Amino acid sequence: MANITKKVSWSSRADESGAAGEGTPLLNGSEQPRHSRQVQLAWWLTVRLTAVTPEEARRCCVILDYDNIENQLFLEEERKMSYMGFRCLEISRWVVCGLIGFLTGLIACFIDIVVEQLAGIKYQVVKENIEKFTEVGGLSISLLLWAVLNSAIVMLGAIIVAFFEPIAAGSGIPQIKCYLNGIKIPRVVRLKEGPMIHSGAVVAAGVSQGRSTSLKRDFKIFEYFRRDTEKRDFVSAGAAAGVSAAFGAPVGGVLFSLEEGASFWNQMLTWRIFFASMISTFTLNFFLSIYHNKPGELSNPGLINFGRFQGDSVAYNLYEIPLFIAMGAIGGLLGALFNVLNYWLTIFRIRYVHRPCLQVMEAMLVAAVTATVSFTMIYFSNDCQPLGPEHTEEYPLQLFCADGEYNSMATAFFNTPERSIIHDVLCGILLATITPDGSIWADPGKYALIGAAAQLGGIVRMTLSLTVIMVEATGNVTYGLPIMLVLMTAKIVGDYFVEGLYDIHIKLQSVPFLHWEAPATSHWLTAREVMSSPVTCLNRIEKVGTIVDTLSNTSTNHNGFPVVVKPPKLCGLILRSQLIVLLKHKVFVELARSRLTQRKLQLKDFRDAYPRFPPIQSIHVSQDERECMMDLTEFMNATPYTVPQETSLPRVFKLFRALGLRHLVVVDDENRVVGLVTRKDLARYHLGKHGLEELQLAQT
Amino acid sequence: MANITKKVSWSSRADESGAAGEGTPLLNGSEQPRHSRQVQLAWWLTVRLTAVTPEEARRCCVILDYDNIENQLFLEEERKMSYMGFRCLEISRWVVCGLIGFLTGLIACFIDIVVEQLAGIKYQVVKENIEKFTEVGGLSISLLLWAVLNSAIVMLGAIIVAFFEPIAAGSGIPQIKCYLNGIKIPRVVRLKEGPMIHSGAVVAAGVSQGRSTSLKRDFKIFEYFRRDTEKRDFVSAGAAAGVSAAFGAPVGGVLFSLEEGASFWNQMLTWRIFFASMISTFTLNFFLSIYHNKPGELSNPGLINFGRFQGDSVAYNLYEIPLFIAMGAIGGLLGALFNVLNYWLTIFRIRYVHRPCLQVMEAMLVAAVTATVSFTMIYFSNDCQPLGPEHTEEYPLQLFCADGEYNSMATAFFNTPERSIIHDVLCGILLATITPDGSIWADPGKYALIGAAAQLGGIVRMTLSLTVIMVEATGNVTYGLPIMLVLMTAKIVGDYFVEGLYDIHIKLQSVPFLHWEAPATSHWLTAREVMSSPVTCLNRIEKVGTIVDTLSNTSTNHNGFPVVVKPPKLCGLILRSQLIVLLKHKVFVELARSRLTQRKLQLKDFRDAYPRFPPIQSIHVSQDERECMMDLTEFMNATPYTVPQETSLPRVFKLFRALGLRHLVVVDDENRVVGLVTRKDLARYHLGKHGLEELQLAQT
Repeated sequence: MANITKKVSWSSRADESGAAGEGTPLLNGSEQPRHSRQVQLAWWLTVRLTAVTPEEARRCCVILDYDNIENQLFLEEERKMSYMGFRCLEISRWVVCGLIGFLTGLIACFIDIVVEQLAGIKYQVVKENIEKFTEVGGLSISLLLWAVLNSAIVMLGAIIVAFFEPIAAGSGIPQIKCYLNGIKIPRVVRLKEGPMIHSGAVVAAGVSQGRSTSLKRDFKIFEYFRRDTEKRDFVSAGAAAGVSAAFGAPVGGVLFSLEEGASFWNQMLTWRIFFASMISTFTLNFFLSIYHNKPGELSNPGLINFGRFQGDSVAYNLYEIPLFIAMGAIGGLLGALFNVLNYWLTIFRIRYVHRPCLQVMEAMLVAAVTATVSFTMIYFSNDCQPLGPEHTEEYPLQLFCADGEYNSMATAFFNTPERSIIHDVLCGILLATITPDGSIWADPGKYALIGAAAQLGGIVRMTLSLTVIMVEATGNVTYGLPIMLVLMTAKIVGDYFVEGLYDIHIKLQSVPFLHWEAPATSHWLTAREVMSSPVTCLNRIEKVGTIVDTLSNTSTNHNGFPVVVKPPKLCGLILRSQLIVLLKHKVFVELARSRLTQRKLQLKDFRDAYPRFPPIQSIHVSQDERECMMDLTEFMNATPYTVPQETSLPRVFKLFRALGLRHLVVVDDENRVVGLVTRKDLARYHLGKHGLEELQLAQT
Repeated sequence: MANITKKVSWSSRADESGAAGEGTPLLNGSEQPRHSRQVQLAWWLTVRLTAVTPEEARRCCVILDYDNIENQLFLEEERKMSYMGFRCLEISRWVVCGLIGFLTGLIACFIDIVVEQLAGIKYQVVKENIEKFTEVGGLSISLLLWAVLNSAIVMLGAIIVAFFEPIAAGSGIPQIKCYLNGIKIPRVVRLKEGPMIHSGAVVAAGVSQGRSTSLKRDFKIFEYFRRDTEKRDFVSAGAAAGVSAAFGAPVGGVLFSLEEGASFWNQMLTWRIFFASMISTFTLNFFLSIYHNKPGELSNPGLINFGRFQGDSVAYNLYEIPLFIAMGAIGGLLGALFNVLNYWLTIFRIRYVHRPCLQVMEAMLVAAVTATVSFTMIYFSNDCQPLGPEHTEEYPLQLFCADGEYNSMATAFFNTPERSIIHDVLCGILLATITPDGSIWADPGKYALIGAAAQLGGIVRMTLSLTVIMVEATGNVTYGLPIMLVLMTAKIVGDYFVEGLYDIHIKLQSVPFLHWEAPATSHWLTAREVMSSPVTCLNRIEKVGTIVDTLSNTSTNHNGFPVVVKPPKLCGLILRSQLIVLLKHKVFVELARSRLTQRKLQLKDFRDAYPRFPPIQSIHVSQDERECMMDLTEFMNATPYTVPQETSLPRVFKLFRALGLRHLVVVDDENRVVGLVTRKDLARYHLGKHGLEELQLAQT
């Protein structure tokens, strides 16, 4: 299904026999020419990793709060907890990570098996049809059948995605990147299909909360983890597990999570994430080994691999280094070009292809075009290969070839990605630039690998994690150094022209994404200039009516409110979500006096409402109740982080980024509130071609 | 020499014959039994990584400040800098990292070649001697000669270390770990010999500052980098480059730096560190390939490797997993035992072996004992191997064997570590537990590798980086999963009994090391309880006499002073080092008026003094000058981070750890200073067997 997702998403590159798009590992020991397999796999990888769609719902993201709300309730709970309690929590974190890894591995395994089965069915149907019609010259009917089969599956997937869950379109990587950065795009981690990275994150969000909104089940476990801080940690683990299952790269998975969310990193968390990755690869390999009737053989890599490179003692030579670097530069150039085209296409699609039915038609059009192109290619190709006695090709098609031979081009289109040999179709760019004289190189597969790295690096620009993923996927570290060189060159060259693909899409979604550091030339700015001011403050004991009016004010729509005492001094910070829970439970001073027996509001009530707090409109407050008072003392965070007005932007930025803040109160030298810095205030400054620029950002 | 290092180190860890002890890669293509080589190499690795000595000077560490001092001078400089200026800075950071990698690689190469040459010389001398005396029955003279040779080199090294640079003893890893955490042990990054990780860090500290105190040269470049923040980043890169050169593991090197210093991590920095690692491996391989007359063959790994594992398609099976886990558990147990013994031995040596001459004698004693043991083993061993036509052994010794055979035991002692075959000597524990019936296993080398992982993991407890280092050193990712499993098991089991070796030694040095998180049960504590109070504050315009007296007060010896204005409100924070520079340059209000032409104090003056600021005693202030006033406005950090008194310890801790702070001002709700939290205040809380405990820490 992910496959379909892919087709729907951007320019399509569609084909694909069906489910998932993550293929099967090379268990059948096929002896296909290695380099072509690698080249086409690289291409396919590019497709998979770069499939991104614009968000329709892009103007309604939610900022996550990675700063614990340390109010009295929280501190009381933490203080009540014994050392053993903390040990148990720690153990349950490990258990949850194990579960995440296990389920992600299972999903990967399921996808893999379904893809293989669907491909098999398609092959059978088409093959029988071909055998029936070839003699009577009706081959075009077979090919039409094939095109219809493809289109039907595409349509099914496209309809599901376009009408039911638009967020499932694309690779999900930009969304997960945003999530780890601290911006939640609604429904991003709810149950649905998607590629492995996304799947892992979805599993993590579900399992760690001990409940599922989509399935409407609450298992009453892991309630402690129902807050942004903990949830984010588990989502990191899920994303890592997904990468791990997709590429058989547990370390690469950890590094992927690290590159995207590293500012709140710590060692124990790293290990838990590593554990999830490990379990995920293990689960996948274990079940696949059973499926392939070789139970217990665990040395298989993940779903995708570049084939095994057996280590030659001299894998590459000094004179090849400049060649690698040149390939990296070309990859960077092509990647930048790809990104620019992708950007234009995305803009076009945002403008003109925004209705679900249009999107389905678009996907089907692409499928039809693909089928026609395939048809043409097969028709004009006369790449007939002898059908060897080992039957290394699982789906040989004779088509226009002589008896005892098979048409390698047709075969390629029936194989799941890593099985097929599309060497002269897809890899024009790569091989043309790489192996003008393939024979003089010991191993053209090496160049294919390097070419793949250059291309991917030029597009996505993740150097460290991509290196490790590729090294783990090839199963040999010998190529580590050249891959690194190539990825770095590609990044440097590509960055000169345009940002990485994910960054482009993040910017298109205009979410307040915080980069690693404040723009270099932003020392001119101080907190006073960037903060939002004036700020709506609440008194520690505030009238209910005032609170309701403040929350209902759609023109400001703030999410955090400084709490003050007279003379106006900052004494705390309270969130919209907390106020809503308080209003819902009618925690009013007057009522508390009259109903002494009523149980005190507990942290549990906040956790139950997390993360989908009701809107203020859904809460009914009577006219009498509006006159009541609310005491916020117990519920506000009594020690919010503050900065003076003169603090420079880089300093504010560092505090925000390092602590994962959502609100930062700006105070004067008498501790009076003068402003509030939010993530949006920081994210809008951007280093453009002409110095510091301000961006338009989505409403948070 | 590495060989000698090894023998002297572990039981004593005193020695350090000098340079480094990283051996040579397996370039000669020897076909020695693989498993034994791996086992002995693992043993040797353990010895190398775990060689740590107590610091004599352990009560005088310096805390680094990873928070930029954002005073007016700094902001002015930053604001003056154009966008191009920042680009240039960024480029010079890359250049410095490249240089660090290059020099570290060169050092590794130099060490490798010297070790090989020395081993060759030793072999020649002893062999000639043996040939001369064997016939006349004077073999004991040869062996005596050999023992004397060994002892002499050990003595030379021991004298250099013990008398001239005690900090060079040990592996340097705990020191670098401390440095990355934010504690500088004096002289730790000054020019001297040491193992590769340490060497890399030393190179980085030198190169990045554009000058060397040891060499008394200032190249007047990279002056911008003369502050703790930048220097630490480069030291991270150096440590990574060192690991990279030692093990041929660039990614492992990055992860090592990451595991130790990750709280101030960012993506650009990661890439620079990665670049340094890459260049380091590349340089090493390039020069070694020239030395070995195979120029341009770059696929060799680092100095140390476990031999190449050619990927079998079935590398391991499900039923082996429990076995791996059991090995991990045993490794954890043995590691814990080793650590406890090491702890006692260290305590013993701190008490009784603290004078340099005693240390030299200790080292020589160990060398003598080693020689005697070797002698005995060679004498009683009759492991004679036929001298094959390929002459795979570089240093065959006939000794008590028949003609055409060589004594493998004696040969082992003449080889540099990775060359020798000490299988029945050193690997008792490992092989006994692993291959009771070696013949049934396809590859006993696999078990040796897993055993090595278990042993190392049990001792040092670095899971993620160690996994990657071992995977990169074996050149095959197939064993990634089992290595991970084993390391995690070893860590869990080992942690149950005792901390990791480096943590033990860090604790022995009683430095204020901050762990990843505050102790779990520390929510009881607030800033009010942990802070130092009362705090010595300075006025914004302060009398010189007061400042001198404050700095000279040895009973408090503070390093940071809150600056206040009347009515007492916090308006900044100034450091001892800054005040000293101000006093030295006599930046007094009265003098500025009289000498209008005098140039204004610039950031450069602070950088020139960095990092070895003179003590207050060395600055002469006359009685008249004591009556002058100093205006701190320009020099103090006007926006120090503050917290209210009620802030919980975990919150304070997070702020400290995430931002790398040295001082945190505690204020009341009117912005008056009530206390100061330093690193020591936080580091002294520790989770012991009976809940929260307070530690005794070194004076900072």
